[in-house]
Amino acid sequence: MTETFVIAQGGGPTAVINQTLAGAALEARKRHPGSRVLGALHGVRGIRDGNYVDLSALSEQQLRLVAATPSAALGSTRDKPDAAYCETVLAGLHKVGATAFIYIGGNDTAGTQQILAEAAGKDIAFVHAPKTIDNDLVENDHTPGFISAAEFIAGAFLSVDLDFRALPGIYVGIVMGRHAGFLTAAAAAWQQDEDSEPHLVYVPERAFSPARFIDDVREVTSRHGRCIVAVSEGVTAEDGRSVVENLVPPDRLERDAHGNVRLSGGDLGMTIEQLIHDGLPGARARVDTFGYLPRGNVATINDTDAREAFQAGVFAVEAAARGGGSVALQYAHGITRPQLVPLADVAGKTKHLPDDFLLTDSNRISAKCKAYLERLLPRRFEVAKPFV
Amino acid sequence: MTETFVIAQGGGPTAVINQTLAGAALEARKRHPGSRVLGALHGVRGIRDGNYVDLSALSEQQLRLVAATPSAALGSTRDKPDAAYCETVLAGLHKVGATAFIYIGGNDTAGTQQILAEAAGKDIAFVHAPKTIDNDLVENDHTPGFISAAEFIAGAFLSVDLDFRALPGIYVGIVMGRHAGFLTAAAAAWQQDEDSEPHLVYVPERAFSPARFIDDVREVTSRHGRCIVAVSEGVTAEDGRSVVENLVPPDRLERDAHGNVRLSGGDLGMTIEQLIHDGLPGARARVDTFGYLPRGNVATINDTDAREAFQAGVFAVEAAARGGGSVALQYAHGITRPQLVPLADVAGKTKHLPDDFLLTDSNRISAKCKAYLERLLPRRFEVAKPFV
Repeated sequence: MTETFVIAQGGGPTAVINQTLAGAALEARKRHPGSRVLGALHGVRGIRDGNYVDLSALSEQQLRLVAATPSAALGSTRDKPDAAYCETVLAGLHKVGATAFIYIGGNDTAGTQQILAEAAGKDIAFVHAPKTIDNDLVENDHTPGFISAAEFIAGAFLSVDLDFRALPGIYVGIVMGRHAGFLTAAAAAWQQDEDSEPHLVYVPERAFSPARFIDDVREVTSRHGRCIVAVSEGVTAEDGRSVVENLVPPDRLERDAHGNVRLSGGDLGMTIEQLIHDGLPGARARVDTFGYLPRGNVATINDTDAREAFQAGVFAVEAAARGGGSVALQYAHGITRPQLVPLADVAGKTKHLPDDFLLTDSNRISAKCKAYLERLLPRRFEVAKPFV
Repeated sequence: MTETFVIAQGGGPTAVINQTLAGAALEARKRHPGSRVLGALHGVRGIRDGNYVDLSALSEQQLRLVAATPSAALGSTRDKPDAAYCETVLAGLHKVGATAFIYIGGNDTAGTQQILAEAAGKDIAFVHAPKTIDNDLVENDHTPGFISAAEFIAGAFLSVDLDFRALPGIYVGIVMGRHAGFLTAAAAAWQQDEDSEPHLVYVPERAFSPARFIDDVREVTSRHGRCIVAVSEGVTAEDGRSVVENLVPPDRLERDAHGNVRLSGGDLGMTIEQLIHDGLPGARARVDTFGYLPRGNVATINDTDAREAFQAGVFAVEAAARGGGSVALQYAHGITRPQLVPLADVAGKTKHLPDDFLLTDSNRISAKCKAYLERLLPRRFEVAKPFV
């Protein structure tokens, strides 16, 4: 029987999601000579609408160039199929004679695969390949896309700290991260010493109190003469709602098909700027919203991340041969390897920063978190300690 | 006579301002064995207050590490000395027996040197060494610091365009640049083709009309299915005032000692977000304020920029031997070389984007601007054209 692989990409792009695409496409051709590999455009929407690109027609060289290109070459989607949508997707897969559907994405994408797998027969293998800068997939030690985005963040905070040693003040960088603070914690990955950036880290796992925030910043500023802060877009107030959700007028509050409130605007930044203006009058303060800059940045593609993402794609083809499931990057005995886990174990679940990754009663990361980050993100730049 | 060099750094840090510091310090020691090289902390403030670090005590290896470190290792200042301040600075220079004062900075810094040179006798040589990510110094083909910051911008826009091909929408990146649009124009340096980022560029040299902006964005979005926009922080309204100045409540409007309004906040970004929300209802739009991220980023230090900055420092010592003046990077016969020009030619003056760097009646850069950027910023990353 001729194998037909359908591959698609879902959710927010990363710097290495195309590595996974290329890894799967190349491995499918290698293991199943003569097989067809179809790339669905804009995720499940491409399957529903019959929009494909024939990846079998591309040379290995072309696929390697695609692999090295950030963002989702096939396009992405935030569509979350309901039952009716699923029917059209399944019909679409049958129409092209699909024997396997590999969907690269986060926990929402794993959820889509789970729904499809339950609705379909055994004739199609449904595979979820992991991807997210948020690093919030359970069963994974870390996720493809995280390391590259984290390197951007680590380098940015190292750099900004040097900037604010030269011209002292308060700096706040707002970092993507809806539910999990890994990316924000990565701000501390290349911290030089106790005196260095970031002095404070605010993540979704801890309730954000404006009054406490101002006290923290005041204390650090009086001790270090400057204060460098990393804040997750998804920080939540005591009532459990995101700070953004509590602040933005309802008519401007956008939600995606998954019901997620849009966090990537400048609202939180402006609010924090106002907080500092009111709470620490006269202080020189700057708030930057990193927004989309870290997530698929061509200048900070990490080699390990690229290689692991490619391997996840290769393993997705093996996973299809085993009947489907979710590919998870697991770490044991000093080695990161893709493993197969059930879709249900990953779908819709969120991995949070472990409790012991944060210091108790302080907005700082723990030595354990530091060690985890150092394993994934070895220091890349050596810098001199400034004279001031 | 023992030579005593005083070196200081002024204005906003860059990724390579320490190259100039190291170049000057190493050259001073080489040309004048036994000379003293003092680094003043936080610019002229360090001279006024007698705060120095003895750079003569550092090994070449230590100075090379300082050179490779972004931001101003000596600290910086935004102080603009008046007559009384100048007296204390001159007294400070005499106190340490300075024979030359090399001040690394932008046009405000050159202005300070001009005032000091006019107030002092001939016993001290006053040298301005160029530095600014804004690329707005007259007499210079380009300025140390610009290329590295521009690479950050070029890479970011290339990446964001790929992101918005995958998940279409409107993206606006707000880029530093008070009076000159060079850094914002650099968003187009690595543009792949007509269809690629950025589609629109708004710079301080052209009046910003909100209505025209919305029309432009609507037109591009309907043609390309997405719209990528670069906007200078310093864009000005028809009345010649900065857009930020027109919008921010006066009690929040910060000014530095030079009378410059602070532009680096998120105010402009929020205003543009609101403009799009009102003018193009329902559109998916994201606005990121790049803020401090490009200016001293450790991940995008450009080798040419680093080398030229170092050479500017080396040449500053030669400039001191010639009696002082401003070091300018000039370009002729395919080579960029530092040259000596009078301080008065640079002080307080601003170089703008030439008229023919922008297309008439369109918010796009011209082929001439493209060629200039390509000379300074050869394409660093090859990427595949996405399938969507």
